[in-house]
Amino acid sequence: VWFDELKRGRRRLEQARATIAVGKVSGAVGTFAHLPPAVEEHAMKLLGLAPAPASTQVVQRDRHAEVFQAIALVGTSIEKFATEIRHLQRTEVREVEEPFTSGQKGSSAMPHKRNPILSENLTGLARLLRGYAVAALEDVPLWHERDISHSSVERVIGPDATVVFDFMLHRFAGLMESLRVYPENMAKNLALLGGVVNSQRLLLELAKRGLDRQAAYVIVQRNAMKFYEENTDFKTALLGDAELLKVMTPKDIEACFTPDYHLRHIDAIFERVFGRS
Amino acid sequence: VWFDELKRGRRRLEQARATIAVGKVSGAVGTFAHLPPAVEEHAMKLLGLAPAPASTQVVQRDRHAEVFQAIALVGTSIEKFATEIRHLQRTEVREVEEPFTSGQKGSSAMPHKRNPILSENLTGLARLLRGYAVAALEDVPLWHERDISHSSVERVIGPDATVVFDFMLHRFAGLMESLRVYPENMAKNLALLGGVVNSQRLLLELAKRGLDRQAAYVIVQRNAMKFYEENTDFKTALLGDAELLKVMTPKDIEACFTPDYHLRHIDAIFERVFGRS
Amino acid sequence: VWFDELKRGRRRLEQARATIAVGKVSGAVGTFAHLPPAVEEHAMKLLGLAPAPASTQVVQRDRHAEVFQAIALVGTSIEKFATEIRHLQRTEVREVEEPFTSGQKGSSAMPHKRNPILSENLTGLARLLRGYAVAALEDVPLWHERDISHSSVERVIGPDATVVFDFMLHRFAGLMESLRVYPENMAKNLALLGGVVNSQRLLLELAKRGLDRQAAYVIVQRNAMKFYEENTDFKTALLGDAELLKVMTPKDIEACFTPDYHLRHIDAIFERVFGRS
Amino acid sequence: VWFDELKRGRRRLEQARATIAVGKVSGAVGTFAHLPPAVEEHAMKLLGLAPAPASTQVVQRDRHAEVFQAIALVGTSIEKFATEIRHLQRTEVREVEEPFTSGQKGSSAMPHKRNPILSENLTGLARLLRGYAVAALEDVPLWHERDISHSSVERVIGPDATVVFDFMLHRFAGLMESLRVYPENMAKNLALLGGVVNSQRLLLELAKRGLDRQAAYVIVQRNAMKFYEENTDFKTALLGDAELLKVMTPKDIEACFTPDYHLRHIDAIFERVFGRS
Repeated sequence: VWFDELKRGRRRLEQARATIAVGKVSGAVGTFAHLPPAVEEHAMKLLGLAPAPASTQVVQRDRHAEVFQAIALVGTSIEKFATEIRHLQRTEVREVEEPFTSGQKGSSAMPHKRNPILSENLTGLARLLRGYAVAALEDVPLWHERDISHSSVERVIGPDATVVFDFMLHRFAGLMESLRVYPENMAKNLALLGGVVNSQRLLLELAKRGLDRQAAYVIVQRNAMKFYEENTDFKTALLGDAELLKVMTPKDIEACFTPDYHLRHIDAIFERVFGRS
Repeated sequence: VWFDELKRGRRRLEQARATIAVGKVSGAVGTFAHLPPAVEEHAMKLLGLAPAPASTQVVQRDRHAEVFQAIALVGTSIEKFATEIRHLQRTEVREVEEPFTSGQKGSSAMPHKRNPILSENLTGLARLLRGYAVAALEDVPLWHERDISHSSVERVIGPDATVVFDFMLHRFAGLMESLRVYPENMAKNLALLGGVVNSQRLLLELAKRGLDRQAAYVIVQRNAMKFYEENTDFKTALLGDAELLKVMTPKDIEACFTPDYHLRHIDAIFERVFGRS
Repeated sequence: VWFDELKRGRRRLEQARATIAVGKVSGAVGTFAHLPPAVEEHAMKLLGLAPAPASTQVVQRDRHAEVFQAIALVGTSIEKFATEIRHLQRTEVREVEEPFTSGQKGSSAMPHKRNPILSENLTGLARLLRGYAVAALEDVPLWHERDISHSSVERVIGPDATVVFDFMLHRFAGLMESLRVYPENMAKNLALLGGVVNSQRLLLELAKRGLDRQAAYVIVQRNAMKFYEENTDFKTALLGDAELLKVMTPKDIEACFTPDYHLRHIDAIFERVFGRS
Repeated sequence: VWFDELKRGRRRLEQARATIAVGKVSGAVGTFAHLPPAVEEHAMKLLGLAPAPASTQVVQRDRHAEVFQAIALVGTSIEKFATEIRHLQRTEVREVEEPFTSGQKGSSAMPHKRNPILSENLTGLARLLRGYAVAALEDVPLWHERDISHSSVERVIGPDATVVFDFMLHRFAGLMESLRVYPENMAKNLALLGGVVNSQRLLLELAKRGLDRQAAYVIVQRNAMKFYEENTDFKTALLGDAELLKVMTPKDIEACFTPDYHLRHIDAIFERVFGRS
């Protein structure tokens, strides 16, 4: 999911780069009054830019806004990834963990705390990028398509947005390279509450055996809810449900709790995202 | 209008300052576990702050958001003023002009141009402030009311928003002090198109004389429109309108073109805004 | 913390209401050309409004922006509360739960799921309010302080922002009234990982006994980390730390794990927020 | 310039459409647990959509954000065009005019007023779109890449943003089709102030004749400024400047005031934007 989203992000950035990589030497009102288009074309070639097909005193600012929008959106995707890491690193979940060197101090007040500080930082930085994109959009409707009001904005958000974004990309890449992953905690979490994550599978199994969906739902839900009401775990509850046992054997029930069921199509998904190897 | 708006702005800033001028020494979860409230109260007194009545690990960020909102709104009022100056300085209007020293160069390409560069600059800077306020609002819903994601945001927008705003206030104050005002151009503009700005007064005058409003409207509009269609100015057109002359003498018509009519209540307005002297 | 924040929210809304509760009958350019100020004053009194001290063709839009900013900020505080509820309702945490009637169906696919759907909804709605505030701010710099461009904006965000906000307030109030709270889960969570939340208290206890802070930190951290590295809980680890036992008896150590330590100043905090009873 | 900008707008919208035209039938966590990918592919084909290569419970919201960003940016370009029309329709400029039927009433108070009401309306509507894009970006970082908080947002901004945008496109297209253009006013405005818009041409002419740029600038500027200081128009001032007359004959000076100079490269610009006919 992340790789696929970042492919879209890369496409957005490449498109934005193509949009912004233009220049103009067409004079103060864009008429080439004092220099012919050929000069502009020559100058742009030297700079590795394309000539803006039509310009006023300035290159039109929808081009710049597209860049800041792309930066804000890719930065927001990074926030999504960072949000996921923050959730997965919660003390109670702990399926992943940001790198933490053994000499590193934790919180000054609480030595045991291992906060996902890189991800929290990335979350905040994305807010800056969204704010810059708001300012960039307002730069588009210049008076007479060329007042100079965008200048003060771009002098600030030009360096700030690109520097923050560059920092985020590097921080995120570094974080991914050194992220600790704990598969055993993943397994433990999947088994929480007696494997209640498998409830849908049970539901479908009952439907296959001819129960109507509503009846199946009632059976599954009442056993799932026992955890909340009596602290009885899901599988235990199911194995003691007389009505259910009329339709499924204990062995049938056990068979609904295997994780490989969810992994059968993983190769197809990988092929879609990464292509055929 | 501006003074009245800036009074509201000052009130917003003062309120925001009171909201943010709090601190806390209540420990890592706000329970005063290791130091009693009295220490916090003493420390805050030394700092000229009030203790936050209830806190978590941090002072809650709605306080900070209020500050950035107030800055954004007052900065946007300055943009409104700057927008008005830009309009009034247009070559065709030129009722006011930003200071321009005789030695000062204008545009490098166009020596005659006198752009309202200060006001254009203020217009742009207000966009930055609005962007910062967007980021500040997103800082409020911290996880468990105290994740550290706001930190990276505040390190940037704290100095940036206050520095930009301070600069805007000084630039705007300086601009107002040295703004050139051209009353003769104001008079000229009011007389444009044969004083068509007085059309409403004529409309009411006709109504007073017993014409129904729709009939009065038709008379006034057809004479106002003559400027657009035949380049005949408004007053000239009126003085040649036979139907109108049945109701008003030329002298009555002339009497509708005096500017003092609009100034009769100026003292009442000033008293409302500035108080009784 | 929430009550205190909502007191600030109420103050913001009351202030915004006072700011917006003005009107004008001062004519097309605000000069009272055709009706004296007394008429305006009379009309406003009938409407329960104050006259805008100075106006143009319109009441200035910084007043409206203040309203939308206040709505966005209070709505964002509600998002903060909703975020907290969402965290506390996580399956692994479950200290609170949104109301869930026994007949109510959960997720259609997953009968066991009890999602904090009201809080998720409130989180989303706050985003709308922030977007409306962005549009409202842009309405302030009208051309000549009175173009009509704000009209199309206000016709949409006027009803939309107030309706969404009203809905949020009611939904949040209803949610609070029927929120299920599970103190036993709170106690369980505090005891997680061997009560590692008490690490700071231990740190200070060691400091009181003359250890320098760095040495104390090392002792506490190494025992806190044992959970992560060896799955040994914090208290057990401490009770087996020879170096620590030179300074504190097992009984001293046990004494650092009592929750009442954090509740000593609760009355003082309540008094600050709610006043003396 | 507008056509070229709208080509970029169309490209943005087409790209956004391709990004959003995906769907998923991959189950509650995106693993195809209960239905194989082939079912998804079949269903998407029927719907004219592509399968999202990898999904969670939902299609990832960066796709939606791209759509709202594209809408906001193209809407903002329309605001730029509308801003230009508003400027060009000013009473003092009047190079274009929105359609105004002879029966149509103007302002109720001021029968002569011909406000660019369509363009003012478009200006306001663009603000709405920018606000919606802010909300859409915040929808991206869902918890566990699939909380339901985006739902309340999308139910509002989905219809609102697309309806507003559709309305804007139609209103703008209709406006362009019936816009009145006044070339004679354009000519009049170019001649304003004695044709001071030709100052740069004069500057270059002097440079060609060997004057250093600074000396040329002083000559041109002092004559341009005479309008502001003595109300003498530019050409008249130049023709009376003894120092200038040493370098250029009156005929040479006159030759600098022809508009065709600015039109020499118009075919090249058209070819760039519209292609070879």
